Amino acid sequence: MQFELTDELIEQVQFLIEMKNDKELQLLLKEYHYADIAEILDELDLEEAVYVIKLLDSETTSDILMELDEDNREKILRNLSAKEIAEEIEELDTDDAADIIAELPEDRQAEVISQIEDEEHKAEITELLAYDEDTAGGLMAKELVKVYETWTVAGCLRRIRGQAKDVTRVHSIYVVNKQNKLVGRLSLKDLIVAKSDQKIADIYISSVDYVYVNDDVEEVAKVMQKYDLEAIPVVDNNQILLGRITIDDIVDVMKEEADKDYQLAAGITQDVEADDSILELTKARLPWLVLGLFGGLGSVFIMKGFENVMETVPSLFFYTPLIAAMAGNVGVQSSAIIVQGLANDNVKGSIASRLFKEIGLSLINGLALAVLVILFGFIINQELIESIAIAASMMSVIVVAALVGTFVPIVLDKRGIDPAIATGPFITTSNDILGIYLFFVLSGLIIGF
Amino acid sequence: MQFELTDELIEQVQFLIEMKNDKELQLLLKEYHYADIAEILDELDLEEAVYVIKLLDSETTSDILMELDEDNREKILRNLSAKEIAEEIEELDTDDAADIIAELPEDRQAEVISQIEDEEHKAEITELLAYDEDTAGGLMAKELVKVYETWTVAGCLRRIRGQAKDVTRVHSIYVVNKQNKLVGRLSLKDLIVAKSDQKIADIYISSVDYVYVNDDVEEVAKVMQKYDLEAIPVVDNNQILLGRITIDDIVDVMKEEADKDYQLAAGITQDVEADDSILELTKARLPWLVLGLFGGLGSVFIMKGFENVMETVPSLFFYTPLIAAMAGNVGVQSSAIIVQGLANDNVKGSIASRLFKEIGLSLINGLALAVLVILFGFIINQELIESIAIAASMMSVIVVAALVGTFVPIVLDKRGIDPAIATGPFITTSNDILGIYLFFVLSGLIIGF
Repeated sequence: MQFELTDELIEQVQFLIEMKNDKELQLLLKEYHYADIAEILDELDLEEAVYVIKLLDSETTSDILMELDEDNREKILRNLSAKEIAEEIEELDTDDAADIIAELPEDRQAEVISQIEDEEHKAEITELLAYDEDTAGGLMAKELVKVYETWTVAGCLRRIRGQAKDVTRVHSIYVVNKQNKLVGRLSLKDLIVAKSDQKIADIYISSVDYVYVNDDVEEVAKVMQKYDLEAIPVVDNNQILLGRITIDDIVDVMKEEADKDYQLAAGITQDVEADDSILELTKARLPWLVLGLFGGLGSVFIMKGFENVMETVPSLFFYTPLIAAMAGNVGVQSSAIIVQGLANDNVKGSIASRLFKEIGLSLINGLALAVLVILFGFIINQELIESIAIAASMMSVIVVAALVGTFVPIVLDKRGIDPAIATGPFITTSNDILGIYLFFVLSGLIIGF
Repeated sequence: MQFELTDELIEQVQFLIEMKNDKELQLLLKEYHYADIAEILDELDLEEAVYVIKLLDSETTSDILMELDEDNREKILRNLSAKEIAEEIEELDTDDAADIIAELPEDRQAEVISQIEDEEHKAEITELLAYDEDTAGGLMAKELVKVYETWTVAGCLRRIRGQAKDVTRVHSIYVVNKQNKLVGRLSLKDLIVAKSDQKIADIYISSVDYVYVNDDVEEVAKVMQKYDLEAIPVVDNNQILLGRITIDDIVDVMKEEADKDYQLAAGITQDVEADDSILELTKARLPWLVLGLFGGLGSVFIMKGFENVMETVPSLFFYTPLIAAMAGNVGVQSSAIIVQGLANDNVKGSIASRLFKEIGLSLINGLALAVLVILFGFIINQELIESIAIAASMMSVIVVAALVGTFVPIVLDKRGIDPAIATGPFITTSNDILGIYLFFVLSGLIIGF
């Protein structure tokens, strides 16, 4: 059943578009899931993609739009009238509808909203647009199945049949009191198993997880993951039920967060993909490279300061890439573990105990590596004092690099800055400079220059 | 409603354990969700944790066990008898039960299985244990709601009431034919909305996504994410329905994969957390550091070969950390983009076009950085020919590093090796050596030594 995007399929679609053979094209695309059609559209020219969107009914195209690559979606929407976009919006759940509108330029947003015919849908979308996109409110949908505690099971089933039409998937039925405050939940299963004359108040489950509308999405993701939830209701500060968030949206958030952190660690400053344009890739990569360059030029400066050592202990200069590499690697390892620990809430204990642990850990690693450096010195017939100086200062560099890698993210996190920025090139670069400086100073103290 | 793990709470639990005040302890813990109790237990001593597990009923403790940190779970299980573990297993869904048993030492596995009283549960768990843990079979549960296409809606609802008791959450109802082949699906909603005398054959939806029992879990995750599924049925090669996978398990798989890739990129070879012991952290970190050290010693060797250049153009040696850093950073960026692209299936086009793009991209980046290096040369009054030699060879190093970073993961992927291992220290180290060698050779050609 796996869909495979083949060149033949794309060519076939392109051929039918060129021939304007709408009937055949509709028949062909009907076979595919909207997520598959989105993949096909991502491969077409803009004009071709717009042609397909205008051809298919808005029930299908609204879903396709949601699955398209963001850049492509933006381009296609620019080629649709406000009326046409509004028609797509009518078909979407409120959360997706609000997301699409939020992506439009501001002047078009009002225009599109004014064209939405369903007044309730319009009001709900406008409400959702007011929330910050990184909060529960920005992620929730207004579609949910809600019952009052005073209803009976039979009455409930009857009304759910009405409500459920608008809700793609019924995860939980939320139970509210007269003031619309969330008081509990029910599953469809519970309802089916219950007797039809029972009151909802007698059968609902009062322990219900929920999040507040202003909670951060990462917090929502953590709660849903921890408690294995597939949907979670969103309430305001007075417990009034406002909407619900479903796990598929959280899966997307998690994927985006993981990709972003990975890219930050690799020194890529914005969301790019392998198939983006050279210009976009350059914009994402050059900033960190320039930072790395300044770091490297800083090392040039430091080493120029020790130029006279070249005559007495030239071999020190051979070790500078090694020192920079070790400082960088240790720093990246330490920062990665801490950043992940902070994200997963498993960095516990006091600062002092962490300090102690990190020093212990890096001393063990440093010692093992120092032994190897001294052995290497024997092999290449290096003066013992030089080998010892190099090994000892390398050990110190490793300890300092580990401390920088551990504590910079912790400090950033305490100040409310995303600690993930302190991984990769940032740590590597600062540790490079610091490491090389320390290396020369300490070797100088041991060898005596 | 957010649960917070406070020191007071832990102390209170510890006090009640010490006092052996079972009644109060049970009352206290009853207030909390099993995932919260697991967090509390992760903070207790082994003896205390075992005390709590033995105190609470197995319906609760089985869920707690699943949420515990893996190391802690292993220790606790070692303190339970085969009979006691079997009692926990009886309460768990088949997928969780099989996971727990798979974690036990082999001799205990048979012992625990033999103590399971429910014969059907035992058979199902034994079946699941046979599948590779990285496949759909290793992730699926046997619990699902299955109806035959010949049943009526009323008969269906009646039987579902029976089946659903064993199924925590009914996502979809799977429709099978007489041979137990999967033919379609139904939602509870569809069933409630349908008339009671309709036949299932008339109302079921025949387009149903499914995966094969031997499909890779990453493939399953991709399918479920793409099609926004909350559960997916698993079939064998003859389309016989074997089990189902739910999104909460996929969420965990995605999280683990993302953490693993992030750690690989940061040079950490096994799954560790910030709070693991120094020994475990060393085991995870030292291997890559040793690799980095060998790389650095390789650079020492290369530079020793160019020792005589120290007299004519000493400044070249000041630039070696810069060259190594640029080679490393560019390589990590390129590999990260490709590894992510391969994971998300968006690396398209031919090898030739990718080669062309990567060269173009790195030439642009390299040129921008080369200009900065020449400017820096002016500022520090460096000979122009030296600056040009350094800038030009740096550019070449950047191009080569980008190519290595791009194509090593592609080659690994083609050979069926996880390309994520070719990020971080691996790319940094090989690019460091290659870069420094290239730098001296090319500078030599330009300056003439």
